Amino acid sequence: MSKYFSYRWVIIIALLLAPSAGIAQANNYSGYIDPFIGSEGQGNVFVGPSCPYGMIKPGPDVNRASNSGYSPDLDIPLYGFSQVHVSGTGGGPKYGNIGLMPFAGNYDQIKQESLRADEQASAGYYSVLLKQYHIKTEITCTHKVAFYKFGYQPGSRKALKIDAGDFLGEKPVPDYREAQQFVGSEVEVISNTEIRGYTRIRGGWNNGSAYTVYFCAITDKPFKSFSSYKDGKLYPNVKVQIDNGTKTGVLLYFDDATEQQIQVKVGISFISTLKARQNIDEEVPHWSFEKVLNQCRDSWESLLKRVEITEQTPAAQKKMFYTALYHTMLMPVNRTGENPGWQSALPYYDDFYAIWDTFRSSGPLITLVDPQRETDIVNSLLNIYQRDGYMPDARSGNSNGRTQGGSNAEVMIADAYVKKLKGINYSLALEAMVKDATIPPGGNEEKEGRGGLTDYNSLGYVSNRFVRAGNRTVEYAYNDYCLAVVAKGLNRNGEYRRFMKQADNWQNLWRPVTDHGATGFIMPKDPAGHWVDSITCVESNGRVTAIPYTPLAQDWPTCVCWWCGFFYEASSWEYSFYVPHDVATLIKSCGGTQAFKTRLDTFFNNGYYNVGNEPSFLTPDYYHWIGKPGLSSERISQIIKTNYNETRSGLPGNDDSGAMSSWLAFHMMGLYPNAGQSYYLINTPLLVQTVLHQAGGKDFKITAKNHSEVNKYIQAAWLNGKTFDQSWIEHQELLNGGELVLQMGPVETGWGSRVLPPSKPANY
Amino acid sequence: MSKYFSYRWVIIIALLLAPSAGIAQANNYSGYIDPFIGSEGQGNVFVGPSCPYGMIKPGPDVNRASNSGYSPDLDIPLYGFSQVHVSGTGGGPKYGNIGLMPFAGNYDQIKQESLRADEQASAGYYSVLLKQYHIKTEITCTHKVAFYKFGYQPGSRKALKIDAGDFLGEKPVPDYREAQQFVGSEVEVISNTEIRGYTRIRGGWNNGSAYTVYFCAITDKPFKSFSSYKDGKLYPNVKVQIDNGTKTGVLLYFDDATEQQIQVKVGISFISTLKARQNIDEEVPHWSFEKVLNQCRDSWESLLKRVEITEQTPAAQKKMFYTALYHTMLMPVNRTGENPGWQSALPYYDDFYAIWDTFRSSGPLITLVDPQRETDIVNSLLNIYQRDGYMPDARSGNSNGRTQGGSNAEVMIADAYVKKLKGINYSLALEAMVKDATIPPGGNEEKEGRGGLTDYNSLGYVSNRFVRAGNRTVEYAYNDYCLAVVAKGLNRNGEYRRFMKQADNWQNLWRPVTDHGATGFIMPKDPAGHWVDSITCVESNGRVTAIPYTPLAQDWPTCVCWWCGFFYEASSWEYSFYVPHDVATLIKSCGGTQAFKTRLDTFFNNGYYNVGNEPSFLTPDYYHWIGKPGLSSERISQIIKTNYNETRSGLPGNDDSGAMSSWLAFHMMGLYPNAGQSYYLINTPLLVQTVLHQAGGKDFKITAKNHSEVNKYIQAAWLNGKTFDQSWIEHQELLNGGELVLQMGPVETGWGSRVLPPSKPANY
Repeated sequence: MSKYFSYRWVIIIALLLAPSAGIAQANNYSGYIDPFIGSEGQGNVFVGPSCPYGMIKPGPDVNRASNSGYSPDLDIPLYGFSQVHVSGTGGGPKYGNIGLMPFAGNYDQIKQESLRADEQASAGYYSVLLKQYHIKTEITCTHKVAFYKFGYQPGSRKALKIDAGDFLGEKPVPDYREAQQFVGSEVEVISNTEIRGYTRIRGGWNNGSAYTVYFCAITDKPFKSFSSYKDGKLYPNVKVQIDNGTKTGVLLYFDDATEQQIQVKVGISFISTLKARQNIDEEVPHWSFEKVLNQCRDSWESLLKRVEITEQTPAAQKKMFYTALYHTMLMPVNRTGENPGWQSALPYYDDFYAIWDTFRSSGPLITLVDPQRETDIVNSLLNIYQRDGYMPDARSGNSNGRTQGGSNAEVMIADAYVKKLKGINYSLALEAMVKDATIPPGGNEEKEGRGGLTDYNSLGYVSNRFVRAGNRTVEYAYNDYCLAVVAKGLNRNGEYRRFMKQADNWQNLWRPVTDHGATGFIMPKDPAGHWVDSITCVESNGRVTAIPYTPLAQDWPTCVCWWCGFFYEASSWEYSFYVPHDVATLIKSCGGTQAFKTRLDTFFNNGYYNVGNEPSFLTPDYYHWIGKPGLSSERISQIIKTNYNETRSGLPGNDDSGAMSSWLAFHMMGLYPNAGQSYYLINTPLLVQTVLHQAGGKDFKITAKNHSEVNKYIQAAWLNGKTFDQSWIEHQELLNGGELVLQMGPVETGWGSRVLPPSKPANY
Repeated sequence: MSKYFSYRWVIIIALLLAPSAGIAQANNYSGYIDPFIGSEGQGNVFVGPSCPYGMIKPGPDVNRASNSGYSPDLDIPLYGFSQVHVSGTGGGPKYGNIGLMPFAGNYDQIKQESLRADEQASAGYYSVLLKQYHIKTEITCTHKVAFYKFGYQPGSRKALKIDAGDFLGEKPVPDYREAQQFVGSEVEVISNTEIRGYTRIRGGWNNGSAYTVYFCAITDKPFKSFSSYKDGKLYPNVKVQIDNGTKTGVLLYFDDATEQQIQVKVGISFISTLKARQNIDEEVPHWSFEKVLNQCRDSWESLLKRVEITEQTPAAQKKMFYTALYHTMLMPVNRTGENPGWQSALPYYDDFYAIWDTFRSSGPLITLVDPQRETDIVNSLLNIYQRDGYMPDARSGNSNGRTQGGSNAEVMIADAYVKKLKGINYSLALEAMVKDATIPPGGNEEKEGRGGLTDYNSLGYVSNRFVRAGNRTVEYAYNDYCLAVVAKGLNRNGEYRRFMKQADNWQNLWRPVTDHGATGFIMPKDPAGHWVDSITCVESNGRVTAIPYTPLAQDWPTCVCWWCGFFYEASSWEYSFYVPHDVATLIKSCGGTQAFKTRLDTFFNNGYYNVGNEPSFLTPDYYHWIGKPGLSSERISQIIKTNYNETRSGLPGNDDSGAMSSWLAFHMMGLYPNAGQSYYLINTPLLVQTVLHQAGGKDFKITAKNHSEVNKYIQAAWLNGKTFDQSWIEHQELLNGGELVLQMGPVETGWGSRVLPPSKPANY
């Protein structure tokens, strides 16, 4: 064939491919994003605009006690739009820094608030009508710059407050647990279109040291006059309010006669005010709201289109699915180039909030959809390890803290390793893991590393002299397994054997007690090795009693503080299932297959399962290990139907930086990862067909044939045309590209019953 | 008597008193300050101007590897004058931030340096002739503002570099131990007389996290042109160099025709550049160099005149004594109102560098001369405890770290408590002490708290599985004693008994080995309780051998790293004397009075005593406890004669924030504190008479009668006219006011042999 012909063919092929790209574009995946899903109830999601892993998250603040700043309660007035938020978190709030508030009356009043109406939110966009003075606010953003459009009523005097002192979660008591504390702030009027300054805050949920949010705000029209303020007092025409440890801000007044709209760009930085200004110059060197909005939407589109679902999917499911992907990619936040603590060639991410929440499904989902991103995120853990001494289990405001259970960065590293993410120094990663596993973090042991490690490494379990001894023990055991996996890959056989052995440590707290028909539970033990039958309970009236410790007992927060129980945020019924690396041995310990099935049934039927928190994320899939994947699918389908939907209260618990959402997204596709291990469990998808357009260029398609309400069981499967009888699939198979076809039917027919998913090998 | 008469008497009394004040002023105590004492040899003192506990310490930088920036070697060129320094420290340097360098040639060259001549320094003043372009530089300062006067040659073009990127102790390897590391910097030309910016640095000796020094520089004459620079490249007329993680600065060019002198005020802040500017406006709202200089000198004068020595004292001794007081009051640094980490009503001091050095004599000297200051310093320890979780054992750049031995803040608190310093929340202090004693700090255990605490609290000693096990054990034992003293005072009897018992823990490492005639030494022990006879030695050629561990053995830094030996910076011969709370039992353990005397003699005669480091600070006074205070005085006199003088090499070791100097000052007065305890040991003074003008208004006079080279023994003493036969005096006696008269003579006559100084009670 001549050269000419080959070129022609290339063009023809390109033309043939073009329409499909066109369809994808027409599909408008980002259009399915509904930021309000999870904004009511327990979801605590952030409703303002954000780019993927976006550093700036400008959005409405209604309730200072709210984690996202937001409240769906329209009877509570909105008091501003601040630039930094987190999404889905619980506990004491963080951030809520540098507030903007337009107003058109009470001009000499610093406090400004308004009831609201007509809230709209979509990918990269939020708008609201502030009823007090009938001001429409629209917001979009780039990675580091927020773009505001304020539409005032004709004839009104247009005013804008920029508040460098306000933040979420303040308490009057200094060092109040989980409260953010004010350190300082500053504002400076640079010109009649520019304000700069910063706010410096410490504390919050993770008890972090002080972080500083620098800002630069530029208006598209000059203000005619202004008052700066400090500590509640107005200073007309005073350009500078220097930090003396009090709250500062500025009120700007625009000409009444000019057009009704004021646009404001707000750049932030964690380095300096000039850097905040530079971030504006670099990211938004224009005044087009539309351009910024489209750019943000495009960045979402480019990610979401990597997971293509059929056009016929019901609208509600599309919304649920793509919003779940969206929620997963809001955090951690990319702060590369914005680390005030040190320099490094490695990426820098902040707001791991918390890895305990996200390692299970968010990390694996990012690995599947956006693997380079997960590489960067894991590298940022190593970056933090190198300079702060430990990888975070949680981190926010440039500070590690707090650790709820294990040192679960280990799971993220193992997950990256077994899924063969390139560009990570796994020797360094192993070093960081070994540090977690061997060097106690000290102090209150809430900041990083493994609390109670002295017990764990000498006794083989964390004894009752430490708080959270139960979940620490089971999580460390799994963390050790993850460490061993990486050690083995690096031919570090000493560490491999040591930590594989320690991966059995959950058994050291396995007590053969019986509760509601199930035998064998993780129970408290003292340092001498004696089981502990009762725990001290300090009642609210001050009476100290001893209550029997049972597998359903919940000592926190009634008897002891929230963080002081034997388990963190769950019962022994939940945590006794937490052996993700060795479900086979767990089943034996529970009395075998039948006993295990009964135990699972009891767990779900009696309501011991908590859909709204992470410890039980994997448990609905446990029927797979007794060869009954159909029962897993039944549970999962029921869980989703009952707890998830496309409404504002569509998330059953704190979204926790997208943890809850990523659990949903995976299960909707019919996959669920066992984080830290190389496979996905296969379940009945909610989606009839999913096509993963993978980074390597190869597509992987999951198709549920004959899928319906009734045909809810997988009866047979084919991988690339070959019979596929196992209920789990290796990540490598997905990377290879191809198609998994699931034949659906109305009854279980034994598919997945013969080859069970992996468990820890008995010999190693 | 009529009213009229009483008023007349008041006036007459005032007139009578006036001349004595006049004489004090004429005495010009600050004139005796010679900042160069200790600038050659090991002293490492800062030679530039500083106010007492001054935040800004502007001074010459000659050697980037030097702790003070200074080098006496005139063959090494000076490269700038930076604004932040510490004095007397060892290990990797800290600070050296925001450099100024005048120049008058090579105008487009960022690197500027010059050989120097005519260095002058006095209280609050430093000057030098830069020979390269014959520029005379003079410097003085207030608490937060440096004032420079640059005198150029006629006809030359006058230029000035302001460098926001340079600092001391840089190494090419990231995270190199004890090296400072660059994080970022920024400069902004605000007007033709004003530059602002900052430098952000981490690391250094204490491995601290990033600190930021903000600055504002104002010139008294406008510069005609300028070039900013970044990463080694010049940007003529570019006003702003925004932080992108590279080094920035600015070169200013002044009019050639105008007068030859340029004055520059440089304000610094740890809060913001605007705060740095405000510090200038508040502290130096004028252009009078003399006014600033006089103000600084007055602040020294008001402190030094509190200790009055006779006019007849030889000039060399006056210089030595008042310079010793001066050195003691350079650090820690008062940063109240300049803490970027949190707010507190308590004072904030930084640069405890290190308490391990200063608790022994610097703290007690400040308590004696400037008790309100010591109250503030102790309160700042509690302030840090409340927000950072632990009191520092060392702290610099707003970060705790590093701990060399014990948690010696305990000694400072006990010292304040037994000397009845008011205005300290001792309950909070006890809480902070108990935390040190019970909660392991974790991580590398170099940051704060007590490393190896798990051993200490379970075994009663730190075993050889931890580094620095020897000095940790003996220091913790004394720290525990100090804790017990405060606990007792607060009626916390449980803690009192527990920690009094633990104060005996030094005995758990007391091994009855004999070395050079002395029996009983602190020696290494393993966790099982077996003595360790040999230690691993990794020689520089890589060969690993075992060397016998003897009381003179020094495993660091030849065999193991500097911080990795059994003892920190001293031998067992030195540390085995470290039982400052129970010398009586120590004497028994050594075989009784005679054996102890022989041991002390061997220690000093054989050169096992190290005059240049803190572990043996108290040992020369130990003859007191065997009833031979005259022998203590002999040793002390010999030590001072041989090692201290009024020259530039007049300090025998790192001055360590004034530790070495305060040891000298106390012994010159004839007193020496046993820090943490309420008394001073009495020795033959070098000074014939000292009058302490105390804060409470009462004077205490120490007079050595018949004092001469020959009459070097105290033969009798009188306190307020009553016979005083003990060789130690309570702090309360000093507070009460009065006079201690020491009758000197040529032989010991048994004074001080009957009532021995206190030791820990056997029953408690």
